Amino acid sequence: MSGVVVSIDNKKLAKASIAPLMQLVEDDMKRVNSLILSKTGSDVEMIPEVAKHLIDSGGKRLRPMITLAAAQMCGYEGDGHITLASSVEFMHTATLLHDDVVDESDMRRGKLAARMLWGNEASVLVGDFLLGQAFRMMVDVGSLPALDVLSHAATVIAEGEVLQLQTAKNLETTEDEYLEVIRSKTAALFAAAAEVGPIIANATPSHINALRSYGNNLGLAFQLIDDALDYGGNAGDLGKNTGDDFREGKVTLPVLLAYRRGSNEERQFWHDAVVEGKTDDERLQKALEILVRHDAISDTVARARHYVEMARDALGTMPDSDHKDALVEVLEFCVSRAA
Amino acid sequence: MSGVVVSIDNKKLAKASIAPLMQLVEDDMKRVNSLILSKTGSDVEMIPEVAKHLIDSGGKRLRPMITLAAAQMCGYEGDGHITLASSVEFMHTATLLHDDVVDESDMRRGKLAARMLWGNEASVLVGDFLLGQAFRMMVDVGSLPALDVLSHAATVIAEGEVLQLQTAKNLETTEDEYLEVIRSKTAALFAAAAEVGPIIANATPSHINALRSYGNNLGLAFQLIDDALDYGGNAGDLGKNTGDDFREGKVTLPVLLAYRRGSNEERQFWHDAVVEGKTDDERLQKALEILVRHDAISDTVARARHYVEMARDALGTMPDSDHKDALVEVLEFCVSRAA
Repeated sequence: MSGVVVSIDNKKLAKASIAPLMQLVEDDMKRVNSLILSKTGSDVEMIPEVAKHLIDSGGKRLRPMITLAAAQMCGYEGDGHITLASSVEFMHTATLLHDDVVDESDMRRGKLAARMLWGNEASVLVGDFLLGQAFRMMVDVGSLPALDVLSHAATVIAEGEVLQLQTAKNLETTEDEYLEVIRSKTAALFAAAAEVGPIIANATPSHINALRSYGNNLGLAFQLIDDALDYGGNAGDLGKNTGDDFREGKVTLPVLLAYRRGSNEERQFWHDAVVEGKTDDERLQKALEILVRHDAISDTVARARHYVEMARDALGTMPDSDHKDALVEVLEFCVSRAA
Repeated sequence: MSGVVVSIDNKKLAKASIAPLMQLVEDDMKRVNSLILSKTGSDVEMIPEVAKHLIDSGGKRLRPMITLAAAQMCGYEGDGHITLASSVEFMHTATLLHDDVVDESDMRRGKLAARMLWGNEASVLVGDFLLGQAFRMMVDVGSLPALDVLSHAATVIAEGEVLQLQTAKNLETTEDEYLEVIRSKTAALFAAAAEVGPIIANATPSHINALRSYGNNLGLAFQLIDDALDYGGNAGDLGKNTGDDFREGKVTLPVLLAYRRGSNEERQFWHDAVVEGKTDDERLQKALEILVRHDAISDTVARARHYVEMARDALGTMPDSDHKDALVEVLEFCVSRAA
């Protein structure tokens, strides 16, 4: 590993934050938030209710911030980035609504999942509504290349969800297959979010490719770190926001690594958890012990670092700027969450 | 990184070798070599001449050895693995012949390239002949799934070569795009070579997937290490077999990383080398200085290690055996070459 990685490991990580990014896009994000609220309006009363439940629930809105920053750093001067950023967030929100139905999740970001309050049907249909609005907003911007990128991402995300259905509960899934799932399910939207900024700014192909690659690799790292965090990250301590993946029997990279590295007895344990649903607190504690024994959490973080390094190098051809620094710091922040 | 990586870095690397693999498949490889010789026979005199030139030129024949070992470790008892291994080597040889024409290479493995002795036309056509023989041999085995895997790999390899044409000389190529090229150009054949063994042995889907993933990630690592070695590897000393990529203006990962990390002056230097063909020995020395300054060679090796770790974990679901140990040692050998 390079000296850069070491410096991330030690000092920078502790301080890395998304604050610089938030500051750069603060004014634009106010406009995005207004647009998002206005576009959830509908005569069908349930739609704004359900949508607002999720939209108000305090996500970081990292994806639209990346769209805004990418457009700004490429010198974009119009209003299209506000609309595209909102569209990106709608696509994300729609997938969350649908995911909770598919995964039968009870909670989302510490609150009851929408489906627990309004039912599965409403969650599916309001998700569809938001996806429809996302498409209308993309069309409003009038950039066919941006429309192409985002509509393609929407297809890939859906493909990824179907692929995940097929691999779900399958402990023999290879890491390659798992990466394919998260590349579609998570990284595709990050990549599109980063790419449409330079596209509407008429940036060079080199800059468009650099930002798409940044988004793609950030997305992979982001998901892997999320996977690690659900088991407490490198510290391996289970706080109040951990263990959800285990309880839902989700097969994530830490589990796949521990399964492949484990004994027959341990594999039976994972089978009982994932397939038979034996996931009480005692078993969660045992899961953590097995994961730590096989370096499965720390190696998931190490795998994420590889993609962080790729994302960092991807930005190498962009001119130096506050925006570039802020996007690099997002990478460091991403890994630092699991430290 | 896990403890496993550390131990590779230190002790195991120095000893890692492909000897255990060679020993396990020694008898089968004799049969493969005979079959290869017999299948280059043709009434058209030039065909055996050209083919033998390349076939005798001392490649390690790693790909067919992997096919044989993978079949053996899955308990295969027929003769099909001999034919498929020969077919894999023919596909590889055909791409070498075609590559040298496309790259206008003068040398191959320290000998004059076939095209320098018999001309470009003969190299192209004998490559086609070998590819045709490879297909006939696959068909002989009579396994439709194996035929599907290998014929698909043949298409992907050709696609990779075309993709490389498009990205060649383009210093703005992202690492993602470069990975796509080597995934097609190199990793696809390694993956197919490893996968057809378990396929004809009627292994479980889990074992088939494990070996395909092993081959794919070994192939990626193998190519990246090759890229690093062409600039002397981690030691960074230019021996007699180094500098070819630079002289041919090839854009490999070390160059892409140095370009993205470099100053405007350094980027001009790479442009002069790759696009203008300014690649004399003095410039090769300067290239090496720039690469080392930006950790571009060592980080290429670090990137390769990531794929080596994925390949190692991929084999996790295979039962312990001498074959598995030998395949893991191939991974360690692969990285150790650049140490």
